[in-house]
Amino acid sequence: MFMEECILLSHGGGGEETQALISNLILSYFDNPYLSRLEDATPLELSSPWLAVTTDSFTVKPIFFPGGNIGKLSVCGTLNDLLVMGAKPRYLTLALVLEEGFPISTLKKVLESIKEEAEKNEVLVVAGDTKVMPKGMLDEIIINTTGIGEIIKPGLSCQSLREGDVILATGPLGDHGVAILSRRQGFEFDVPVESDCSSLKEPLLALFSADVELHALRDPTRGGLASVLYEWAMASQVEILVREVDIPVRDEVKTFCAILGLEPYHLPSEGRAIIALPEPELDKALSILKKYPLTSESKVIGVVRKKTPRPRVLIETVLGTTRIMDTLVGEMLPRIC
Amino acid sequence: MFMEECILLSHGGGGEETQALISNLILSYFDNPYLSRLEDATPLELSSPWLAVTTDSFTVKPIFFPGGNIGKLSVCGTLNDLLVMGAKPRYLTLALVLEEGFPISTLKKVLESIKEEAEKNEVLVVAGDTKVMPKGMLDEIIINTTGIGEIIKPGLSCQSLREGDVILATGPLGDHGVAILSRRQGFEFDVPVESDCSSLKEPLLALFSADVELHALRDPTRGGLASVLYEWAMASQVEILVREVDIPVRDEVKTFCAILGLEPYHLPSEGRAIIALPEPELDKALSILKKYPLTSESKVIGVVRKKTPRPRVLIETVLGTTRIMDTLVGEMLPRIC
Repeated sequence: MFMEECILLSHGGGGEETQALISNLILSYFDNPYLSRLEDATPLELSSPWLAVTTDSFTVKPIFFPGGNIGKLSVCGTLNDLLVMGAKPRYLTLALVLEEGFPISTLKKVLESIKEEAEKNEVLVVAGDTKVMPKGMLDEIIINTTGIGEIIKPGLSCQSLREGDVILATGPLGDHGVAILSRRQGFEFDVPVESDCSSLKEPLLALFSADVELHALRDPTRGGLASVLYEWAMASQVEILVREVDIPVRDEVKTFCAILGLEPYHLPSEGRAIIALPEPELDKALSILKKYPLTSESKVIGVVRKKTPRPRVLIETVLGTTRIMDTLVGEMLPRIC
Repeated sequence: MFMEECILLSHGGGGEETQALISNLILSYFDNPYLSRLEDATPLELSSPWLAVTTDSFTVKPIFFPGGNIGKLSVCGTLNDLLVMGAKPRYLTLALVLEEGFPISTLKKVLESIKEEAEKNEVLVVAGDTKVMPKGMLDEIIINTTGIGEIIKPGLSCQSLREGDVILATGPLGDHGVAILSRRQGFEFDVPVESDCSSLKEPLLALFSADVELHALRDPTRGGLASVLYEWAMASQVEILVREVDIPVRDEVKTFCAILGLEPYHLPSEGRAIIALPEPELDKALSILKKYPLTSESKVIGVVRKKTPRPRVLIETVLGTTRIMDTLVGEMLPRIC
């Protein structure tokens, strides 16, 4: 039996081994004229002076999960953050921090996913960095991606919600959270739920180019739907009402939440958008979103009731009562993304 | 006695505690119209379509060292990578990954350094991310910064070295390496060397605006001077000769290297540049660089001898012999930046 090839401390030292890892392994996945220059910074040209920038570090555990892995997630998560700001993703930077002893074969799988997802979304990895930490100083791998996009739908903002706006969800919420939590060590349910980890590029760019008036978009990741609505309510000084019966949640996710005492609207998704738009634009928006498999289950989940100096988010429960939708408190969900 | 305030897992969960950490602590250091929008991505406007992008994760240990800390380093390191590509730094993203239990007081010191260094260099932190890993899963803190700049001196490249070019170093090399290594646990020398950790913005922008012809710049971080020269030789297909007697190295650094069997030209610096330029431009360049304290000791260390299909880097030793300058091999220098 052969010893498995692993990441060594010397792979992070900046010498020959680092050069070899980068040139022979990493660049083989991301060969493009920008990255292969191997300068300290990469010159780029943008066709628009209006860009959008976002950064995200991914610490998800386990690093492979049903529906994705840390590599796919680190592309989709960052692209979705650009997209919900009305930007067409163009460039990604990729910074890896690896634990000494991390198997090269696993690294290859992660890089393969990053490559696949970047190609599918037509973004280029234009700058990178690789560091190694001694064994025991880091749990496996952390990936940071920073995304740069060109704004093609300006004006989207958490401050733009208006009285009468309807609020859409583009699909079932919380799948990513359940896919991760149910695979944690010492916490193994057999829940047949895959992460929704996906780029929203196709449906959202279609929506942007169709000239539909939109006020705000957000992907409900950490903190879930509740965090999105709460931030919107605060930033726009409005009262939002959602109906529990309308929030799309799979039965398996509901059951999982019931067992653990979680609220589905606190669970993260990684391939969904929440959209606020004027009611007259609703049919047009839905007809576009329903064309794409990823957003085919788009539906209205609530409304902006009124402008108010005392912003809040209300939820009408399945029992017909109305209460404040609480935001996530506590530490149930570490390393979910 | 009070319990020290620490980072909790819930600070990374995306709920109320995360919001509070970001709004009450982190944003208090980086209050600007871009960041305080708190959107998923930040819209920016650039005055030039030519930008430069670089990303770097910082894992340095110890996180505080003579001459700097991980916060200052994470700004200077990334700015220097932009500067050596001829770019004026404009924007930074800041992604923190924190270990559960990391003291809030320490985090404040790190953020204070980032703020100070960003302000001094007139760059704005425009996007951020904060994650928390459970205790024992990460050693203290990792910071990723991605930098965006506008290219004001185009054409600098590791492929641009020409026969007859002179090679400058802007100051003593290896201080950062010695400052870090000599403070490692179980490895304590009393070496009075501070890290050279600094932004090169002032002298390099002066050089760029003076219309001096320059071929390539690089900051000799991981892998040291040897890595820079080796990459240049390979990319430009040239033979480079440096004279050992001309390489500026402090006596304390030489002694440290002698004891540990290291070569000074493998040690990282974090506030130095290596510059290749045509010989006729030398006096003009030196007269500018010598005006600034950070680069006042700039001097010629070598020349590009010839174009060759068999690129190599030669060093003329103090004994007058000439040999191949070897690149760093092995794992002597983990977590140096």
